[in-house]
Amino acid sequence: MPKTRLEAFSDGVFAIAITLLIIEVRPPDSATGELAGDLVSLWPSYAAYVVSFAIIGIIWVNHHDIFGRIITVDRPLLFLNLLLLLTVAFLPFPTALLGEYIRQGDNAHIAAAVYGANMTAIGLAFIAMWTYLARVPALLVPEVGAEGARRARRAATIGPVVYGVSIALAFVSPVACLIVYAALALYFAISFTVAGRAEGEQVTDSR
Amino acid sequence: MPKTRLEAFSDGVFAIAITLLIIEVRPPDSATGELAGDLVSLWPSYAAYVVSFAIIGIIWVNHHDIFGRIITVDRPLLFLNLLLLLTVAFLPFPTALLGEYIRQGDNAHIAAAVYGANMTAIGLAFIAMWTYLARVPALLVPEVGAEGARRARRAATIGPVVYGVSIALAFVSPVACLIVYAALALYFAISFTVAGRAEGEQVTDSR
Amino acid sequence: MPKTRLEAFSDGVFAIAITLLIIEVRPPDSATGELAGDLVSLWPSYAAYVVSFAIIGIIWVNHHDIFGRIITVDRPLLFLNLLLLLTVAFLPFPTALLGEYIRQGDNAHIAAAVYGANMTAIGLAFIAMWTYLARVPALLVPEVGAEGARRARRAATIGPVVYGVSIALAFVSPVACLIVYAALALYFAISFTVAGRAEGEQVTDSR
Amino acid sequence: MPKTRLEAFSDGVFAIAITLLIIEVRPPDSATGELAGDLVSLWPSYAAYVVSFAIIGIIWVNHHDIFGRIITVDRPLLFLNLLLLLTVAFLPFPTALLGEYIRQGDNAHIAAAVYGANMTAIGLAFIAMWTYLARVPALLVPEVGAEGARRARRAATIGPVVYGVSIALAFVSPVACLIVYAALALYFAISFTVAGRAEGEQVTDSR
Repeated sequence: MPKTRLEAFSDGVFAIAITLLIIEVRPPDSATGELAGDLVSLWPSYAAYVVSFAIIGIIWVNHHDIFGRIITVDRPLLFLNLLLLLTVAFLPFPTALLGEYIRQGDNAHIAAAVYGANMTAIGLAFIAMWTYLARVPALLVPEVGAEGARRARRAATIGPVVYGVSIALAFVSPVACLIVYAALALYFAISFTVAGRAEGEQVTDSR
Repeated sequence: MPKTRLEAFSDGVFAIAITLLIIEVRPPDSATGELAGDLVSLWPSYAAYVVSFAIIGIIWVNHHDIFGRIITVDRPLLFLNLLLLLTVAFLPFPTALLGEYIRQGDNAHIAAAVYGANMTAIGLAFIAMWTYLARVPALLVPEVGAEGARRARRAATIGPVVYGVSIALAFVSPVACLIVYAALALYFAISFTVAGRAEGEQVTDSR
Repeated sequence: MPKTRLEAFSDGVFAIAITLLIIEVRPPDSATGELAGDLVSLWPSYAAYVVSFAIIGIIWVNHHDIFGRIITVDRPLLFLNLLLLLTVAFLPFPTALLGEYIRQGDNAHIAAAVYGANMTAIGLAFIAMWTYLARVPALLVPEVGAEGARRARRAATIGPVVYGVSIALAFVSPVACLIVYAALALYFAISFTVAGRAEGEQVTDSR
Repeated sequence: MPKTRLEAFSDGVFAIAITLLIIEVRPPDSATGELAGDLVSLWPSYAAYVVSFAIIGIIWVNHHDIFGRIITVDRPLLFLNLLLLLTVAFLPFPTALLGEYIRQGDNAHIAAAVYGANMTAIGLAFIAMWTYLARVPALLVPEVGAEGARRARRAATIGPVVYGVSIALAFVSPVACLIVYAALALYFAISFTVAGRAEGEQVTDSR
């Protein structure tokens, strides 16, 4: 399986998952004159849409960074990539939960915790990928190698740790969780941008 | 990130958003002999489908025009493009609102205003992109340059101004709004066509 | 706009429209022990799914045949192609209607007529495309030319005529309509196959 | 029709079908404090999501293996491929049935049987493809030939036989069915991986 096919398939899944998010924002069933109020009270759905959109967008950028360092794909990597896609394609479900329940007492804690658990799973899938690549460095471009894969894996551990902690935070304040997720997305977007400039965008895709 | 990957991902999002529009046109729950009448009274949904389809189609053409003038993509542009996609992928929601509420008193004003606000946001995302490109003209083909980016930005201001005004119009006549959106789509399609002929389709994609 | 981008975007819309068809087949809400019967009585939905899947598949093959004869794309052709996509992406709606209402008295006639009207619109979009190509033969490969475009347009008139007649048939027997659509899909698939063999698959894509 | 277009279209359908699976996992309508319990009781939906995701992922890998051995595509193969896509794109429906009914008495047997029937149909579509390729070996790379196609067809018969038997198992224990499907997916993933290593990943895509 050539790398480009795997990338194109993954891009397809990311593009669909990111665009499907909107169908979880359901138009309200409003009585006359109540649409404005009903739309305002849907704010958690919009917030969840924006945060999940940003997160999948950043995962897509991240995914390209990884495959920009890979020369060739073998079957285990192929299935580890499917595992990652499985966790990303699941995100519309906790996004819908968060939108629906974030203002609803006890349920809000659960919804935010499920969202955090999904994010943790995505982070673990990235770590699994780097762990495998550190073992089979022949798949990587020579400048990266096993050492680079181990460094990337260490850097990737931040994700599941932060998201794991957010599961606990969910039981304190679900809205704080949502703000943390939005802040993390913004942080990653900015740090990617700064890093990209610092490196002069050297890590380019071999395609 | 090579330009072609970003274009392919964006094309994927546009293709999905444009095709998802139809699932917001719900088959009516009709009693025997009433389907014909129920289908006729769904006309706002068909009209909203056609207008949003035309708008996303034109945005797709427009997007290609922009990337036909871009040589390379950096991280800020990557995230500005994600911002644009976020606003476009949101459009099925106000499309559903417009289809559902355009004949329903006060709610019709709100639905049309939300649609206009979404269109304004799309226009602002395009302006943000051109503003950035005017600052970093090295991303552009030499014949365009900073001056060309500023000219394109000025031309792009028409969008949010017209759509911003349409938000006010929504509170006068929601149906007039829909007609204005349809007319604008038709106008852009024709002016693109005429412009394309006048330029002899010179601005081509470097792919 | 290079031909390949337009083809990739159109392929995306066809792939999404064809895969979205299944979400119009809703799992029944069955009481204990009644799922088997409920699933059997969903047969019109399965039949509509299969027929629409076959039709979109054939349209996709047909679309490639056309663009295999085209060298370059201009703006009017771009918008005529969007018009075609608009009619194809609409098909999941009458497919859902047909599945839901084909056994329901008067409504069945309407549902089948709407399906026929959508098919007629698709056929007319193909004719519009060939009419334009006959006027601007410079877009075509030289071996085809204006004469080839006129021949293709004449051949394409069969579609809207047959589907137009099927609208009348819908008021006699909706089930007969569905059988005609299935038979037409089968006929086109077989005639394409035979034609492909006769020509030795000479009309190839320039990509 | 060049092979790459057919592959890209098929990849699109696989990517959409795999990503659409999540919209069959509906957020529960929970009263205050009951979301946790309601989410736990949704486990059949998550299990069905994971199993179907794995199955479509493996079908995608399998599809590439086949087209890695094909040089050129003719019309009959094109339509046999559409037949395969029709059966794969249908899978979200029995996936939803399985998630909804697996714990519901008699209905569970039916839901599992329908899932098994869909899997059997997918397997038969693969066999139909290999049967055709064995008859028209000119479509295959020379090293494979008619003999290789017959060998692949024999290997492919395992699928429909196992899945056919699973239809009977559905009437004994639907949960056992789900476990068998998960085990089969895992088995195929591992055997693909081992086979890929044994062959040194020699069967590569000609793209």
